[in-house]
Amino acid sequence: MSAPGKPGLKVSPLAVPFPAIGTIGGVELATGRAGFYKHERDDLLVMRFAPGTTCAGVFTRHKVGSAPVDWCADVLNASGGRDIRAVVINAGCANSFTGEPGAEAARRSAAAIAAEIGAREDQVLTASTGVIGVLLDASKIEAQASAVCGRLKADAWPEAARAIMTTDTFSKGAVGEADIGGVTVRIAGIAKGSGMIAPDMATMLAFVATDAALSPEVMRSMLVPATVKTFNAVTVDGDRSTNDTLLLFATGASGSPEVTDAADPRLAGFRDALLSLLMNLAQQLVRDGEGATKFVKVTVERAESEASARKIARTICESPLVKTAFAGEDANWGRIVAAAGRADEPLVRDRLSVRFGGLWAARYGAVAPGYDEAAMTAYMKQPELEITVDVGAGEASATMWTCDLTKEYVAINGDYRS
Amino acid sequence: MSAPGKPGLKVSPLAVPFPAIGTIGGVELATGRAGFYKHERDDLLVMRFAPGTTCAGVFTRHKVGSAPVDWCADVLNASGGRDIRAVVINAGCANSFTGEPGAEAARRSAAAIAAEIGAREDQVLTASTGVIGVLLDASKIEAQASAVCGRLKADAWPEAARAIMTTDTFSKGAVGEADIGGVTVRIAGIAKGSGMIAPDMATMLAFVATDAALSPEVMRSMLVPATVKTFNAVTVDGDRSTNDTLLLFATGASGSPEVTDAADPRLAGFRDALLSLLMNLAQQLVRDGEGATKFVKVTVERAESEASARKIARTICESPLVKTAFAGEDANWGRIVAAAGRADEPLVRDRLSVRFGGLWAARYGAVAPGYDEAAMTAYMKQPELEITVDVGAGEASATMWTCDLTKEYVAINGDYRS
Repeated sequence: MSAPGKPGLKVSPLAVPFPAIGTIGGVELATGRAGFYKHERDDLLVMRFAPGTTCAGVFTRHKVGSAPVDWCADVLNASGGRDIRAVVINAGCANSFTGEPGAEAARRSAAAIAAEIGAREDQVLTASTGVIGVLLDASKIEAQASAVCGRLKADAWPEAARAIMTTDTFSKGAVGEADIGGVTVRIAGIAKGSGMIAPDMATMLAFVATDAALSPEVMRSMLVPATVKTFNAVTVDGDRSTNDTLLLFATGASGSPEVTDAADPRLAGFRDALLSLLMNLAQQLVRDGEGATKFVKVTVERAESEASARKIARTICESPLVKTAFAGEDANWGRIVAAAGRADEPLVRDRLSVRFGGLWAARYGAVAPGYDEAAMTAYMKQPELEITVDVGAGEASATMWTCDLTKEYVAINGDYRS
Repeated sequence: MSAPGKPGLKVSPLAVPFPAIGTIGGVELATGRAGFYKHERDDLLVMRFAPGTTCAGVFTRHKVGSAPVDWCADVLNASGGRDIRAVVINAGCANSFTGEPGAEAARRSAAAIAAEIGAREDQVLTASTGVIGVLLDASKIEAQASAVCGRLKADAWPEAARAIMTTDTFSKGAVGEADIGGVTVRIAGIAKGSGMIAPDMATMLAFVATDAALSPEVMRSMLVPATVKTFNAVTVDGDRSTNDTLLLFATGASGSPEVTDAADPRLAGFRDALLSLLMNLAQQLVRDGEGATKFVKVTVERAESEASARKIARTICESPLVKTAFAGEDANWGRIVAAAGRADEPLVRDRLSVRFGGLWAARYGAVAPGYDEAAMTAYMKQPELEITVDVGAGEASATMWTCDLTKEYVAINGDYRS
């Protein structure tokens, strides 16, 4: 029943398969067609959580924002992230830049699901993705609420991931587990996003749930730093969205001991599992970057600070000249040097070095001795590339992931609304 | 004899004709083929100036920079911009990121021309454009110095503009005049650049000469603020170059009274003429943006400060999603709102308004009442667009010019070195 985000898109050559998630105790999911798209596809997802589920979220810092993000922030602020019962997500309309009517549409969406599952509207979160500036028609969600909630089941993660796709060419999921106080807990997540992906989130929606028992404070303490290293470290086109939302839910259904102190040593394994899962999802966004044919890891070493390393890495990752060179399989390391130098961060020109995989392109401020164009060109033909830039100004480093900029990106985005 | 920058490129649909410059007293020009390109084309330009010519320059603020920029900065610093006799320019090799050997190559280029015209090497400036990271072969310039300097003549401005092209599809020039103390002075300039164009200059070379008599201090006082409003207000792809150079020469050949005080009221007309000429050249760079089919003026109004307005305008102008929408003739004003909101500058969401020409797309934080998609679509089909964004946060405004992002941009840049 579910079709890809946009008919006719070819699946990314960098796609990875959807994992076998199975079930997460305390989580049920169902999808339906509200009709935000002209073509036949699911565009509505409801996730229901067991009573007492806790939640933490990270949202876009975009100045315009959107009604569903405002709604989530208000709900989480008022509840402290306690006893959240559901989230309702639609694709096909971002409900951003829609003023007071947009806020009311978000509220009505939450209320429609709340009524079906016997909860209050302020226990239901919302998320939307799609075209900006179009008011969400909440009546479409109200009309489907009963039918969708009647289909809730524990093993619908694959359908859920498909229902939230927009220009995504493959559905994105990840799963993991960890030990908390001798009890194995499970964690699973889905995400969508392929364009407008940038540091500081993106048109990116991610929903992660675990059967561990965690206080909202503990979840926030793990989620915020993990986001910096994962979702905020990927960029497709530098365009941050109005709707970015990452939500983490903990149902407690595993029976694991409740952790309420962020410094609790029993969290170590879970923290690692969460970071690994978020990294997996974030990298899948890049693998599905619109028109992408190359998955590129850019590491900046010996920068003055981690923030400086990140800024240089981001400048390289978002340079159209660098990204088109990747698309052309051109080992044009001069453009990487040029991008590093315009980041307005400390670098020592005469120590600046650039490596493609294990091949030195530039060393100490000039082309590398024995530079081998044929070997570089062969390296560039691989689908996954690793670029390392040593800026010689300190001891800090940072890594960011991006993709190439192809004609297909232009085609997809020159024609999005039609 | 001169061929375009790269064979096979179609001339930009936004091109404007090269003006009739005629001559500027005290300036002679000559071109030649040093052989930095495999195909037959001029790639070398020498401009000779009358004894006593003054000079001011603005250069890239790129952290890597290049040997010719270093050379110019050193010469102008040591001489105070007095008695500059020539500039030698090559296309096809940027001589950037080439360390000590690159610096020596720049010096040798200057020395070769100096010897031919009876000047010292520290009276000759240099400029280079082309691939980064390749050492300039100065012997190619030395071999041509005598022949080129033997061809110097006053009316070779059109050939000069063609010799410095790289991926430019048309040659760029502008001419103007002004009155200084009852004497008519003339001013003319040429420029090159089409990719790697960004605020804070670009792979942009511009050489402007006048027959007025101006002290270097007076020239600097006019050139720096004019650059902010012109070359720093255009962007093709946000990629600033290592080699950006804007040089202004004043020969004094008109016999106009020498002006040595930046506050001299007799400068008013010249200041306007210079600003207008630089604006003309800067906009030609955008009109030749790689693959460009749309020339777009973006004005941000009611920002908190002029700097804030500029940052918002630049974020809009450099957003790949906005630029691909222009390419697709899609009036996707939501992407403009999204870009404005991620500039991290003050804006009032409920006052935010967007106008395409005279058509309101968004007003006061939502789609404009009576929004007419057909009229918007018709507007987008024009080759020149004007977008105005009111951010409702203050009283300052700024304008920036950009072009669209097309498949052709990707094609040109995915394959530049081959």
